[in-house]
Amino acid sequence: MSSAAPRSAGRDHLWSVEEHLEDILTTVRPLDPIELQLLDAQGCVLVEDVTVPVSLPPFDNSSMDGYAVRVADVAGASEEFPAVLTVVGDVAAGRAGLLQVGPGQAARIMTGAPLPPGAEAVVPVEWTDGGLGGGPVSGMRARSASPEGATGEVRVHRPAPPRAHVRAKGSDVRAGDRVLEAGTVLGPPQIGLLAAIGRGTVRVRPRPRVVVLSTGSELVPPGEPLAEGQIHDSNSFALTAAARDAGAIAYRVGAVADDAETLRATIEDQLVRADLMVTSGGVSVGAYDVVKEALSHAADAEEDGGGVEFRKLAMQPGKPQGFGTVGPDHTPLLALPGNPVSSYVSFELFVRPAIRALMGLQDLHRPTARAVLRCDKALTSPAGRRQFLRGRYADGAVTPVGGASSHLVAALAHANALIVVGEDTESLEPDADVEVVLLG
Amino acid sequence: MSSAAPRSAGRDHLWSVEEHLEDILTTVRPLDPIELQLLDAQGCVLVEDVTVPVSLPPFDNSSMDGYAVRVADVAGASEEFPAVLTVVGDVAAGRAGLLQVGPGQAARIMTGAPLPPGAEAVVPVEWTDGGLGGGPVSGMRARSASPEGATGEVRVHRPAPPRAHVRAKGSDVRAGDRVLEAGTVLGPPQIGLLAAIGRGTVRVRPRPRVVVLSTGSELVPPGEPLAEGQIHDSNSFALTAAARDAGAIAYRVGAVADDAETLRATIEDQLVRADLMVTSGGVSVGAYDVVKEALSHAADAEEDGGGVEFRKLAMQPGKPQGFGTVGPDHTPLLALPGNPVSSYVSFELFVRPAIRALMGLQDLHRPTARAVLRCDKALTSPAGRRQFLRGRYADGAVTPVGGASSHLVAALAHANALIVVGEDTESLEPDADVEVVLLG
Repeated sequence: MSSAAPRSAGRDHLWSVEEHLEDILTTVRPLDPIELQLLDAQGCVLVEDVTVPVSLPPFDNSSMDGYAVRVADVAGASEEFPAVLTVVGDVAAGRAGLLQVGPGQAARIMTGAPLPPGAEAVVPVEWTDGGLGGGPVSGMRARSASPEGATGEVRVHRPAPPRAHVRAKGSDVRAGDRVLEAGTVLGPPQIGLLAAIGRGTVRVRPRPRVVVLSTGSELVPPGEPLAEGQIHDSNSFALTAAARDAGAIAYRVGAVADDAETLRATIEDQLVRADLMVTSGGVSVGAYDVVKEALSHAADAEEDGGGVEFRKLAMQPGKPQGFGTVGPDHTPLLALPGNPVSSYVSFELFVRPAIRALMGLQDLHRPTARAVLRCDKALTSPAGRRQFLRGRYADGAVTPVGGASSHLVAALAHANALIVVGEDTESLEPDADVEVVLLG
Repeated sequence: MSSAAPRSAGRDHLWSVEEHLEDILTTVRPLDPIELQLLDAQGCVLVEDVTVPVSLPPFDNSSMDGYAVRVADVAGASEEFPAVLTVVGDVAAGRAGLLQVGPGQAARIMTGAPLPPGAEAVVPVEWTDGGLGGGPVSGMRARSASPEGATGEVRVHRPAPPRAHVRAKGSDVRAGDRVLEAGTVLGPPQIGLLAAIGRGTVRVRPRPRVVVLSTGSELVPPGEPLAEGQIHDSNSFALTAAARDAGAIAYRVGAVADDAETLRATIEDQLVRADLMVTSGGVSVGAYDVVKEALSHAADAEEDGGGVEFRKLAMQPGKPQGFGTVGPDHTPLLALPGNPVSSYVSFELFVRPAIRALMGLQDLHRPTARAVLRCDKALTSPAGRRQFLRGRYADGAVTPVGGASSHLVAALAHANALIVVGEDTESLEPDADVEVVLLG
């Protein structure tokens, strides 16, 4: 495991949020790219520059439903003195034909259909009598109901300059043009463009597979009754949902009891489907902190420097954290604290950027904003620790919800932002200018 | 089909964007709710008010790893004159025991474990010698390695007031509290909260199933070679991706040829898995406009007023549009124009709000903003039509990308906003103040 952070400071070093994050982002590498079907690549990052194999549109075609004509034939045409042309047939989209438009002739043509040889412009059907011998029409009759529309005569009421209503070959993109650059995130319009230029598959970094497991002998799945001293497992649900929200394919493993052997076996078992492992709980200073116990041991057993390091961060909530790599592939593992609010805040600060780094995204972080703090009395914050309070942000102002206590999961569900209180700030007055992380 | 829009104006009525949208949103109703597993409900809208069955936390518990003590026993304690207490055992999370803390006694307690009877406060392990007989310690040794830690004596170096480091039963939420209201969108923190209060399933509106099909005999799937006059099908890919992005479960049906019988049969076939159908192409005034032909016919055949109406909108791109209902369940169907940019803009304006209305969301529309138009020369726009130009928005300014032509799919892939040019505006000077729709 590489590290840019000051390990030398020893076990009692209080890591800053930046140091911990830098250690994670130095270790986590973007996943190897794979070739995916277009729709499977949605939301993924392109790893190739995409160039156009064939110009788009690939041929001159009509931008209107109308008649393909020779310009000289319709010069000076008006409703009073229409140009009368012989209709030689239909040119429908997708039906490349042998139709040729000679002097005095017109081909009935549909939007997107190739301009037939001899024709120089298209007059919209609304500028003609539609072959009916009357005044201007608003459209054509369906070919299936009125096959005679493709024959007979048409009266054209207006002239058309050369290339009128013709989309030129290559007017959208030309063969050889680079239309998408490596690093582009593939949203719907990019997927549409790739399809349009004929790409059925595309080379991207896949979504990371994230295995989420919570630890704690007190945890019972929701929906099952609680015995004395038990609580429901919520972290594995919140973290799995958050990992999906960040772009990952997430697998929720049920809560693991506080037994080091069981935890080690579970992690080993899950490694096969993990690009990243996330645990919650068992990282503090207690006698039953199983993640610390199990993974500190695993670190000793490995030869090549892998392993998980447990540390204290200068933040609240989220002081105890673990990070490192496990297993033969050095799969990154983030060990989050077990309090629901601590684990969620830790996810936002550390796991989300790690997932996005695995995806190859450049933009790893949630947007931040400045806001006016709305509260009745001053907020206090511990010196030397960066505090992340839950808040409700709207229109440039943020109101704290719930208290600083790390178990207020109900308040968290009503927050849409984290209020950042710096290490050096011990008190924030009402109307103070604060930084907020927008949870989106 | 109900309609608030002015149908009486007849076939030649030019519908405004608002009239068409209102017709759609008056017809589309939120889907019936179903009970889903928590993680399957992510992104869905809750239809019930959720109240708390059991207070959270369900019992007084420790917020630290440390020792559960009686307040009188540690009064006046200091490092020089520690309180010496007999350790009666461990209280680990999830292990409800028979431990009782009497005078002169302490129980070693872990974060989250229930406060044992007799104890009144918790002292963190860092305020003690950890039972080792030396100075203050930074944590406990793992129980598995040092079982003797649960016995012997502990020296406590500081006093603790009543309830210190104790999380009170019900301090997060109380039984009977309403913690989530109907209408809440379930993100990770809400899913975490539901799990925490024991809810394994939840009643929500499901994601709508959207069937996307493109029409056109000229269309060939990407990855396959083009014959003369053919182009690649891109709309079904872009629209499927866009429907997923809007929150739907989307099914892409391959392009259907311009044959009314085939199209009718395909739609009938797909109805079983559709809450909404979206087609592209075949809605204009040509003789091969198959969607118009097939669905106008279907409308005549139905008894109860269902059917699809084709209309012209006062907008560019996207003038021809169809909307109505099909099949025995009156499944809503939006028929979009076939030009890739037209269909994508139409999706953003009409299909996305329809999908979000089916989900029961209140917030149907993309955010908009005001921006300064950055361009070298004035932009022109047709009178009487609302134009949606593609633009790149950043920091309060927007720059048009590509031209007004509706086939510039490459430019669309580099846009992140639509520039709205009102019906009454025929020209926009550089630095004009414009409305933009942020495509997110």
